Amino acid sequence: MQVSTLPTTPSDVRQLIRANELVQPTAGMAPGHIQANLAILPRDAAFDFLLFCQRNPRPCPLLEVIEAGDTEPRVFAPGADIRTDIAKYRVYEHGEMTAEVSNITDFWRDDLVSFLLGCSFSFESALITAGIEMRHIERCVNVSMFITNIPTTSAGAFSGPTVVSMRPIPREQIVRAVQVTSRFPAVHGAPVHIGDPAAIGISDVSQPDLGDPAEFKEGEVPVFWACGVTPQAVAMNSKPPLMITHSPGYMFITDKQDEDMAVI
Amino acid sequence: MQVSTLPTTPSDVRQLIRANELVQPTAGMAPGHIQANLAILPRDAAFDFLLFCQRNPRPCPLLEVIEAGDTEPRVFAPGADIRTDIAKYRVYEHGEMTAEVSNITDFWRDDLVSFLLGCSFSFESALITAGIEMRHIERCVNVSMFITNIPTTSAGAFSGPTVVSMRPIPREQIVRAVQVTSRFPAVHGAPVHIGDPAAIGISDVSQPDLGDPAEFKEGEVPVFWACGVTPQAVAMNSKPPLMITHSPGYMFITDKQDEDMAVI
Repeated sequence: MQVSTLPTTPSDVRQLIRANELVQPTAGMAPGHIQANLAILPRDAAFDFLLFCQRNPRPCPLLEVIEAGDTEPRVFAPGADIRTDIAKYRVYEHGEMTAEVSNITDFWRDDLVSFLLGCSFSFESALITAGIEMRHIERCVNVSMFITNIPTTSAGAFSGPTVVSMRPIPREQIVRAVQVTSRFPAVHGAPVHIGDPAAIGISDVSQPDLGDPAEFKEGEVPVFWACGVTPQAVAMNSKPPLMITHSPGYMFITDKQDEDMAVI
Repeated sequence: MQVSTLPTTPSDVRQLIRANELVQPTAGMAPGHIQANLAILPRDAAFDFLLFCQRNPRPCPLLEVIEAGDTEPRVFAPGADIRTDIAKYRVYEHGEMTAEVSNITDFWRDDLVSFLLGCSFSFESALITAGIEMRHIERCVNVSMFITNIPTTSAGAFSGPTVVSMRPIPREQIVRAVQVTSRFPAVHGAPVHIGDPAAIGISDVSQPDLGDPAEFKEGEVPVFWACGVTPQAVAMNSKPPLMITHSPGYMFITDKQDEDMAVI
């Protein structure tokens, strides 16, 4: 099934995913709607993780927290089931991936708290609308991601460096890129750094730690945004007994529209 | 001691308060610096309260959460002590006020989590700077506050209606008032309602539920912002075994400046 022939409403897309009839990365699905990162942790770790997100809103923009044992994202996707409505999940035990599955019904427990976090798809839409080229999307490759020397503010067991995504932006469009993304703090918001990669501990901007290398054209400057990989990396570092996430690229599709999250 | 002869740095003001040499409402102290509401709860209730704040950012804009047993707001006031640096505290047991004290050293326990929340002083400064009259400040009376029919999103034991503050704004300054306060989501942000009080369950705008009545001049419209009384009212409704707050008007003075919290 091609993305172009998919239903366009989020709930219809989720139904196909729930029935295992749509197993592919979600970029481009249900256009204009917020897609979310998922992190599920036992209640014992949930307060510290919630606090970590509160202290680090740029890398960890919380959209919704589903309370222990509950499975419905009542605000962002009423009627959905967090255990079945993502195409691929990863299960980690003590920091090691032990399974990749199409639903987590067998792993579900009443003490599990689910966190939905903003993802960069939304602000990339806004940048494209503003006439700023997103080259990695056009080329169907992953955005470049780097582990920086920018510390996060720790909370309980959770600490570690900020992971950023990098996009080459033409010098004359940098101000506009800052303005456009500042409107969306719920999906990472404004850049954390513009220009010199070494200033945030990146030795070679052509060699990303994650994702694919980016091509720079004449007059383009590297611009860095906080990345949703940060909370997952930080949580994994603490080696919790159990943690469940979406698989990279297989996001949770919500009913909210990108513009619903704009602050101004 | 008059406010006008006070030291202007937040830490110097806090030293006087800690020594019980300054026991008066904090409005106007350490001008330009963020003042905060305080709520302290046992760890058992802290996750749900943190979640309540995350779900209701307009009435409950979290500035900092101090982890269980810790007493220093490391981000907003390094070196301060949350047990001593407010002039008056209120202690509530099972929803009833049982003490009003100048420090809470005798009440302190290792399982207490402290929440600092934004207060309207900061956005009122921004409105005044923008040329919008804050009549209640000029007249040294309290802002009008109302219990509305706007529900909050509940979390665990915490639920209840949104409390709002109301300011009369000249019709031609309403757009500017929205713009100015939108820059400060960390201190309640944009209005929740403009105009017709009945639309949010207020039967008589001249009879506030809390605070003092406001005077309207020709061409002025009531504009309503979410109010920091909301989280305290909601927490109190749940009758926790122990809850400690600042006394109304006696805020915690932080080192951060208002403009530090602007999103754009």
